[in-house]
Amino acid sequence: MSSSSRRPTSADVAARAGVSRATVSMVLNGRVEGTVAEATQQRVLAAAAELGYTRSALAISLKERRSRTIGLITDEIATSPFAGRMARAASMVAAQHDHLVITVDLSLRDHTVEDAARLLAERQVDGLLFATMGRMRGPLPVVPPGIPLVLANHEPVSSGADERGEGAELPPTFVPDDYGGARRAARRLIETGHRRIVMLSGDDRSVAVLEREAGFCDELADAGLDPRMVKAGWQIDDGYRAAARLFAGEEPPTGVFCIRDRVAAGVLQAAAAAGIAVPGDLSVIGFDDEDFFAERLVPKLTTIALPHEEMGRRAMAALFARLEGEAAGGDAGLVVVECPLVERESVGIARGR
Amino acid sequence: MSSSSRRPTSADVAARAGVSRATVSMVLNGRVEGTVAEATQQRVLAAAAELGYTRSALAISLKERRSRTIGLITDEIATSPFAGRMARAASMVAAQHDHLVITVDLSLRDHTVEDAARLLAERQVDGLLFATMGRMRGPLPVVPPGIPLVLANHEPVSSGADERGEGAELPPTFVPDDYGGARRAARRLIETGHRRIVMLSGDDRSVAVLEREAGFCDELADAGLDPRMVKAGWQIDDGYRAAARLFAGEEPPTGVFCIRDRVAAGVLQAAAAAGIAVPGDLSVIGFDDEDFFAERLVPKLTTIALPHEEMGRRAMAALFARLEGEAAGGDAGLVVVECPLVERESVGIARGR
Repeated sequence: MSSSSRRPTSADVAARAGVSRATVSMVLNGRVEGTVAEATQQRVLAAAAELGYTRSALAISLKERRSRTIGLITDEIATSPFAGRMARAASMVAAQHDHLVITVDLSLRDHTVEDAARLLAERQVDGLLFATMGRMRGPLPVVPPGIPLVLANHEPVSSGADERGEGAELPPTFVPDDYGGARRAARRLIETGHRRIVMLSGDDRSVAVLEREAGFCDELADAGLDPRMVKAGWQIDDGYRAAARLFAGEEPPTGVFCIRDRVAAGVLQAAAAAGIAVPGDLSVIGFDDEDFFAERLVPKLTTIALPHEEMGRRAMAALFARLEGEAAGGDAGLVVVECPLVERESVGIARGR
Repeated sequence: MSSSSRRPTSADVAARAGVSRATVSMVLNGRVEGTVAEATQQRVLAAAAELGYTRSALAISLKERRSRTIGLITDEIATSPFAGRMARAASMVAAQHDHLVITVDLSLRDHTVEDAARLLAERQVDGLLFATMGRMRGPLPVVPPGIPLVLANHEPVSSGADERGEGAELPPTFVPDDYGGARRAARRLIETGHRRIVMLSGDDRSVAVLEREAGFCDELADAGLDPRMVKAGWQIDDGYRAAARLFAGEEPPTGVFCIRDRVAAGVLQAAAAAGIAVPGDLSVIGFDDEDFFAERLVPKLTTIALPHEEMGRRAMAALFARLEGEAAGGDAGLVVVECPLVERESVGIARGR
């Protein structure tokens, strides 16, 4: 890069236009009020354009005490295939409000949420969105005063004695209805006539596992059926192996609800290898509705959608409602967002067999 | 949020500590030099801590003419499952240099790269990284003067008469060696004894398709074999359907090279449905090495890795080398990054059949 390409300053604009820096400032800030001749104004604007001079949004921010940026604090959201939808929808709303997003990924350094919030506060962000990749429960993050906070996928729980006292208000918090989604999945299998139904669950104790298992079990219990639960895991090969064992065992299921679309993909391959037709002999239902995945499996996967796009959109909208003093009208407190059923081709009427 | 939670100013700190704003400024900027009594310093620091006052990084930026932020311009990189690795590796290097990343996703508004660069220049970013999700060729983006630019996955091509003249220097540009990777995949199938080899390619004319097809065809030609090419598509079901047709046809292949891991996943399922063992009867090799995918297929997929992590890391390092005036030592011009073979379980010695 040549030395002539250093970033131009308002002094450069002034020199080129043959005026003072004060005049440049007045013209570029639109405060001319008859004090600067029309020809001079044109000369300043032309000089600024020729030099590629950009006004400093930072200087404007300092005056207004608003930076037109939102801080997004995440845990690896950028590398998660479907939680990216949440970040994207949130960024879209920010863009509509002429705000940019500065992202701090906690996994990149040994940052706590509090560290990240302080770092972003120093950059004068107007508001903070803390969004985790997976659904979590944890303490309410403490952020610098005066900066509105909204949470997505992270549900604050009080840690016994609440240090913040009675007055501590829950910020708008958006979580998916994992429990209701799992009930919906089980109901779909029951209402299509299935009685031998198994859930292939995750092999951990995450909030998603606990909520989805509870929803599945409650729905089966309400129908007078015994729930059967297999701790499989979260990946394609986990689903493959668990399904292969079920198919080889006694009383193989006719309906399988999977903790995740990827597990369902493994079930579909294991069924193919065992000569079991889906949905003819076996119905399979997933969870997530992962982009370019569930709808591109063979057969196309019926699943429960994680509402990440809606969560990201509503979370950012709630943040702007607070920034604009409309808190009363927007979402507040804990908002549990519905996980809808997406009907495709992998669930069919149960055959007696 | 209560009105007492407005963001504190240095005036608030001064009032609480019972000193002037100038004293607050001197203490918080570490410029006390014996002029402020130790007890007063402690009082100011305590007041700032109690109020949760954060110094304005923007004010510091204005003085230093550096904002300690990097602008990342992308096209949906946030929602791409594996290109996220590139953004993450780049952000990691920025974090090591104490810089934050402001992301502008072109798909969120009708932005051109130039619009985004101008928007980020107004925020005084120190440098710009333009990274596209898929490999592309296009004109060199024009960015405001004085801001170093680095490119990843986007290869600038001159548009006939170069408007920028002879002196226009190519910024550091990082692209994957798709051609070499495809040769490596074909070579692996050839050296394990396969002669009936098919490539399942994408159904478009993207740079990745052109380069990978050329690499595949050249490697087979060098081995005296006729390349067979099927325009399948990029998704799981595309691979499934194309493979099912091949298995039902005459002279089914013993080796399949897929444009992408997802296409290979469809081939594995189609093979399972047709009773074809992988790698016993059929060898399959993918491209991408998508996270939590290739290594979790059944069998684990042998594939060619897209070096997105290395590209992101080296691109951001090249940007900081320029910022720190070390351009001569770092990467420059077009850098083609190797796509290595990742050996797993899906390629075996060819059987005569």
